[in-house]
Amino acid sequence: MKAIVTIMLKDGVLDPQGKAIGHALNNLGFAQVGEVRMGKIIELELAGTDAAQAKSEAEEMARKLLANTVIESFKVEVAG
Amino acid sequence: MKAIVTIMLKDGVLDPQGKAIGHALNNLGFAQVGEVRMGKIIELELAGTDAAQAKSEAEEMARKLLANTVIESFKVEVAG
Repeated sequence: MKAIVTIMLKDGVLDPQGKAIGHALNNLGFAQVGEVRMGKIIELELAGTDAAQAKSEAEEMARKLLANTVIESFKVEVAG
Repeated sequence: MKAIVTIMLKDGVLDPQGKAIGHALNNLGFAQVGEVRMGKIIELELAGTDAAQAKSEAEEMARKLLANTVIESFKVEVAG
């Protein structure tokens, strides 16, 4: 199974990387760009065939290692 | 409109960050974890209400600034 963990900074947490990207896009002429937020995506190849189990395992990995839950939120999707 | 750009290293390009995460998860006791790939996700707030236009603009931004298309592939989704 493949689990995809998406990690974003929580709303209200300053995102300097996103700000820098927004400024760079504005400077390149993309005036329509407003707020920009940047996050991480982690694709995990998991042994096993149970989608619900894979999802709960990936959530445990996100809580224990992948995300900093003080400032980041995460979501897990499982694909075939 | 909100455009979400997902950027991953192309298949065959070595992903040392993903490898490090995989090893760390294995060491934490998650023996079921195989290959891990890490990528970026960039959420752009765009002025305008035309979804097709927002998508093509975000693709242009990805080609020009956000992704390194030599080693990275990207996909764009547009949400309300």
